[in-house]
Amino acid sequence: MKLALATWVEVEDYLKDNDGIIVPIGSTEQHGPTGLIGTDFIIAQGIAEACAEQLGCYVAPPLAVGMAQHHMAFPGSMTLHPATYIQVLVDWITSLSKHGFRRIYFINGHGGNIAPTLTAFNEFYAGVSLKPETEESKTLCALASWWTMPNTDALIRDIFAEKDGAHATASEIAITQYLCPESIKPAAPDLFVAAAGTPLDIHNGYDYRRRFKDGRIGSDVRAANPEDGGRVFKQAVKDITEHCTKFFQS
Amino acid sequence: MKLALATWVEVEDYLKDNDGIIVPIGSTEQHGPTGLIGTDFIIAQGIAEACAEQLGCYVAPPLAVGMAQHHMAFPGSMTLHPATYIQVLVDWITSLSKHGFRRIYFINGHGGNIAPTLTAFNEFYAGVSLKPETEESKTLCALASWWTMPNTDALIRDIFAEKDGAHATASEIAITQYLCPESIKPAAPDLFVAAAGTPLDIHNGYDYRRRFKDGRIGSDVRAANPEDGGRVFKQAVKDITEHCTKFFQS
Amino acid sequence: MKLALATWVEVEDYLKDNDGIIVPIGSTEQHGPTGLIGTDFIIAQGIAEACAEQLGCYVAPPLAVGMAQHHMAFPGSMTLHPATYIQVLVDWITSLSKHGFRRIYFINGHGGNIAPTLTAFNEFYAGVSLKPETEESKTLCALASWWTMPNTDALIRDIFAEKDGAHATASEIAITQYLCPESIKPAAPDLFVAAAGTPLDIHNGYDYRRRFKDGRIGSDVRAANPEDGGRVFKQAVKDITEHCTKFFQS
Amino acid sequence: MKLALATWVEVEDYLKDNDGIIVPIGSTEQHGPTGLIGTDFIIAQGIAEACAEQLGCYVAPPLAVGMAQHHMAFPGSMTLHPATYIQVLVDWITSLSKHGFRRIYFINGHGGNIAPTLTAFNEFYAGVSLKPETEESKTLCALASWWTMPNTDALIRDIFAEKDGAHATASEIAITQYLCPESIKPAAPDLFVAAAGTPLDIHNGYDYRRRFKDGRIGSDVRAANPEDGGRVFKQAVKDITEHCTKFFQS
Amino acid sequence: MKLALATWVEVEDYLKDNDGIIVPIGSTEQHGPTGLIGTDFIIAQGIAEACAEQLGCYVAPPLAVGMAQHHMAFPGSMTLHPATYIQVLVDWITSLSKHGFRRIYFINGHGGNIAPTLTAFNEFYAGVSLKPETEESKTLCALASWWTMPNTDALIRDIFAEKDGAHATASEIAITQYLCPESIKPAAPDLFVAAAGTPLDIHNGYDYRRRFKDGRIGSDVRAANPEDGGRVFKQAVKDITEHCTKFFQS
Amino acid sequence: MKLALATWVEVEDYLKDNDGIIVPIGSTEQHGPTGLIGTDFIIAQGIAEACAEQLGCYVAPPLAVGMAQHHMAFPGSMTLHPATYIQVLVDWITSLSKHGFRRIYFINGHGGNIAPTLTAFNEFYAGVSLKPETEESKTLCALASWWTMPNTDALIRDIFAEKDGAHATASEIAITQYLCPESIKPAAPDLFVAAAGTPLDIHNGYDYRRRFKDGRIGSDVRAANPEDGGRVFKQAVKDITEHCTKFFQS
Repeated sequence: MKLALATWVEVEDYLKDNDGIIVPIGSTEQHGPTGLIGTDFIIAQGIAEACAEQLGCYVAPPLAVGMAQHHMAFPGSMTLHPATYIQVLVDWITSLSKHGFRRIYFINGHGGNIAPTLTAFNEFYAGVSLKPETEESKTLCALASWWTMPNTDALIRDIFAEKDGAHATASEIAITQYLCPESIKPAAPDLFVAAAGTPLDIHNGYDYRRRFKDGRIGSDVRAANPEDGGRVFKQAVKDITEHCTKFFQS
Repeated sequence: MKLALATWVEVEDYLKDNDGIIVPIGSTEQHGPTGLIGTDFIIAQGIAEACAEQLGCYVAPPLAVGMAQHHMAFPGSMTLHPATYIQVLVDWITSLSKHGFRRIYFINGHGGNIAPTLTAFNEFYAGVSLKPETEESKTLCALASWWTMPNTDALIRDIFAEKDGAHATASEIAITQYLCPESIKPAAPDLFVAAAGTPLDIHNGYDYRRRFKDGRIGSDVRAANPEDGGRVFKQAVKDITEHCTKFFQS
Repeated sequence: MKLALATWVEVEDYLKDNDGIIVPIGSTEQHGPTGLIGTDFIIAQGIAEACAEQLGCYVAPPLAVGMAQHHMAFPGSMTLHPATYIQVLVDWITSLSKHGFRRIYFINGHGGNIAPTLTAFNEFYAGVSLKPETEESKTLCALASWWTMPNTDALIRDIFAEKDGAHATASEIAITQYLCPESIKPAAPDLFVAAAGTPLDIHNGYDYRRRFKDGRIGSDVRAANPEDGGRVFKQAVKDITEHCTKFFQS
Repeated sequence: MKLALATWVEVEDYLKDNDGIIVPIGSTEQHGPTGLIGTDFIIAQGIAEACAEQLGCYVAPPLAVGMAQHHMAFPGSMTLHPATYIQVLVDWITSLSKHGFRRIYFINGHGGNIAPTLTAFNEFYAGVSLKPETEESKTLCALASWWTMPNTDALIRDIFAEKDGAHATASEIAITQYLCPESIKPAAPDLFVAAAGTPLDIHNGYDYRRRFKDGRIGSDVRAANPEDGGRVFKQAVKDITEHCTKFFQS
Repeated sequence: MKLALATWVEVEDYLKDNDGIIVPIGSTEQHGPTGLIGTDFIIAQGIAEACAEQLGCYVAPPLAVGMAQHHMAFPGSMTLHPATYIQVLVDWITSLSKHGFRRIYFINGHGGNIAPTLTAFNEFYAGVSLKPETEESKTLCALASWWTMPNTDALIRDIFAEKDGAHATASEIAITQYLCPESIKPAAPDLFVAAAGTPLDIHNGYDYRRRFKDGRIGSDVRAANPEDGGRVFKQAVKDITEHCTKFFQS
Repeated sequence: MKLALATWVEVEDYLKDNDGIIVPIGSTEQHGPTGLIGTDFIIAQGIAEACAEQLGCYVAPPLAVGMAQHHMAFPGSMTLHPATYIQVLVDWITSLSKHGFRRIYFINGHGGNIAPTLTAFNEFYAGVSLKPETEESKTLCALASWWTMPNTDALIRDIFAEKDGAHATASEIAITQYLCPESIKPAAPDLFVAAAGTPLDIHNGYDYRRRFKDGRIGSDVRAANPEDGGRVFKQAVKDITEHCTKFFQS
């Protein structure tokens, strides 16, 4: 159920017996010459809405622009400063907590969001922990980055092996091909291999572009196809639905 | 053209001959017992994408959560603090400006966003004005709230007259009925008339709910229907396309 | 009654039966080659003190430096960043609210202050709306920009017609001539007409000066004189006193 | 010369041969049952304008609301958070520096402003020191609290001796009697002596009021009179004019 | 070489041929009934100084108070808000970068610091990425949490196996016993096993204490001893020295 | 007693009968060609730990990096922006106050910390004063800069007279020689005398280095020796222990 398509009266009813909600978070950033700039939020939103359908819970609108400072040397990328990102998530959590949502589950589509999202949780919690206890101490948050769910990760390795890469991966491009069949772009002709450096060595945008010239990190996008994208998508929905169920019951 | 469905290479090409972009901004907030919580960003996004189609320009993803503190006494509403909202818009503008977008046109679906959006423009501009001049002084922003365009406003008055109201208006509900026909909710049985106060007297959320008990301000939602919604929508697209064209050429 | 000339004991007494206060807000910014840099706060303070006299209420000291980033290419202009401006007003409101002032009425002399002032109100209100209800939810704010009061506006149009312009207007210069007769400057010899652009197209300071070379926007300051200034001033005091009375009684 | 009564053209001329400006800073806070709430900015403004007259330099409008959190248990007191105060002063300094003012001299009327003012200078300087050198490194600030000037302090001790006290002092009340003869209040009948604690032991507002019940700290306001106020005022103007002259020439 | 024990002249010489520096970061927080409150920064500082000795590079003073909001229900714990933590690290990085340090290597002793540290790096980088390129784009940061180095982790598993736990671990207590032999506390009598929840389920401080009653998470501190502490410490120094060497050469 | 070497159970016990704690604050900044970069926090920490020993109270870890923007033109100096510094101290105070520490005594080793520390106290207090009263109003802070204690100051004048200077003083170098005998550096060959300016005239880092070329302000470091350092250190410990005792009992 999309929060955006509900009325406040319906939400008020829901909160009598439920206190869980899903929030998709992604990014608007370059995904190489083949991947869509919206890849990260499109996938997060797609998975989140499918999970919410299965769970019978509400799903908030996606956070479309995330923390992507390292992609700013590629046109079309947008970013929040991490400090802004944190404040945004604190405001979202505070808003939902005010109404009585006590389990807020973030489904994430972008690696660069992980650290600031966890930091945002702690910023919200710090506001709780440093003051006398109130009802707000019952509001708990969880984060699930879809590609890190063990079964999903195993399936990706099984299908794409070393062609998947670390940014603008074959798997995420395949999922967007599945979700947005009208926006499939021609694959870049070959595998871009960075001259040096590993995915962990991500610093500022200038440094990134110097090392990863077309934006990809080690991905062979010729391996992407809508069918495999659909398989990974469904596995991720299954994995995350189970994970979220446990969180809502905790 | 949706920025989310482009690649960075396509955006780089676009920027050789163009420097305009459209950004839809809305809100996630109660719209009375009949209106959708996502009304404001759904309409802004709908209009923005239609305008971008006509203009052949890019449209960014929508800002789905805006400044809606006054609706926080109704479940499901979400808000950014105004200070957060400003920082978000400054970050979006700074990101786009970094790539060479010099005309950034915001299409707005929520009255409560007007003041903080203009304030965000000035926050960005203050960063320019207080320092030695750089290229960034060429980046200009404009704001269009769809219901304030003269011809659109006239059409709304013509169709809905005094039934339109000031929040959760008949016209905005009609547009969402047109855009989301699968989510038409039963109309509230009557016109809610606030016991006292006018639309200009909006303060905090507790005060709001005391005065406007079901969330609406003076709107008779029984007047809303998808056909009239479509008429208003198309007029707004036409008006804003013209207005944006002038801005892009300025 | 000026707050600055009272003792705390007198204010304590006042608050037993009253909860209203007036706050003048202005700007320190260029007003063309003829207008005073202090025009906006001088007028706001003048009107505010006259209204307070009639209402028997307290008037705070003026906010002399406002949001004037767009005037920063003209020497002598001073500005707060909008984010600073908001925090200042939130602190002023919080201070007054702490003592029990429940109706805080801002009389404004500067167009550039309107959006950030409304945004500041919402920042204060957001602090109320996102937390459990306290006494602070009774503290309400209102804004009146003197030249927008209908009767005042009508009188200006009647006296100055199209010579008034949009910045460094004949009417505001006339009022400062009335209030500060010892500081009447020689009028600029002619009407400066901007080569292009309208008053709504205000962006950063560099852009402003390029388009409005001597600082004025379309005003013919030769029309200003102390007598007409006095007429407009008195009308504004009358209009705002009535408006404020309603707010204090709401 | 008041900046508020100048035009930008006059300021532009001034800056060809001068780069100094005076800024008065004060507070809006309780000064016991006899002293005016505006005491601190009224005196700072009075001295600043007299000094500027002698120096032939511009004087900015006063900062009327300063850092007075410790007085917030007394009605009518207003305060900025120190963090806000700092940002305000940084914005003022940045504005003036943008135009080429290189010597900014703050005349202060309130003890509670000293630490945050010096901190604000350092916040502005930190922005300079942590970046490559620009013209802004030439902009220097100085602070003078009138009652700390050696000759002024000696005169106060000579006239009021131990009756002066540490807050709502006889000398500052005397100066306001000199500057605002129409607002002389009846003196509190006796010397309020705090049961315990010294002027250095100032903490939060609740603690302050518990220890200093009527707001004064050790002052016998019966000693205040306009004549002595005038003597102290003139001495302060003389001392500060000399001090400022050196700073402008440094 | 400790930065604190150098002179600026020595640092100036060092920077002619070197651009690397080590920064230890830890926390001041409860470590169960047996562990020291300073455990995290004591270990980080110890390892950092030993590594710097081997590398011949400078080591900054430790960040002693980190992000520990979740421990605030246990007396003696201190925390920075994550937003403060980020600003502190940005200021430290900016300071070092100003002098020409281009490789800044953080050795971390506290799990709760990981997300905010990476976020702080991105906040610093965002300042670089959103502006025209300067020398600052050459300043790169890296993070090493000592217990995550593969060989160190293997040794811990080898020595302590499942008795290590997840907070107030046997291994970290053993290291502090090795480094601070005069402060060895009696071991808690048994293994505290949380009734429910896993180490990943850390939220606010109230929730933490409810679930982990004596502060430990699954650690059997009876297994800790100085000898094993020394072995782990030396392995960590070896691992991190190698890791840092690669970073300095990158 | 060092907080870092205690367990939370010990702190819980301590708080049953005590509510005082000492916090050393210093700086990491150039101290001329002879003085150690860590001088200010090394001395503050040394004195604080000695005082805590005598008082039987806890001492927190030192704040090693303070407000030193004016030293940033000398390699190795580190600084927090004053705004960051304030937020750090507010977080430290808030953490300690949460546990029931009601008297927090800061022992300071750096002149540049004085204004921002007092400002931080007021920022914490403002949070108390602007809200309804809570237990937090009982938390009071005090600041002692060791070289300003009257007897310590007298001893310094007695030993070093005019050779002490105002930065990188002979006395502080002597104390570090006493505390860190293995890090005694050769004395700069002569007394550096600034061509112009006084210690009070400290602005940004560029200006500082222009005027005080080797970092010192008027100090003849040849006068420093460990014996005299020990004498001053012991006097400071004695003075501050007495001062702190009174504060803890207030």
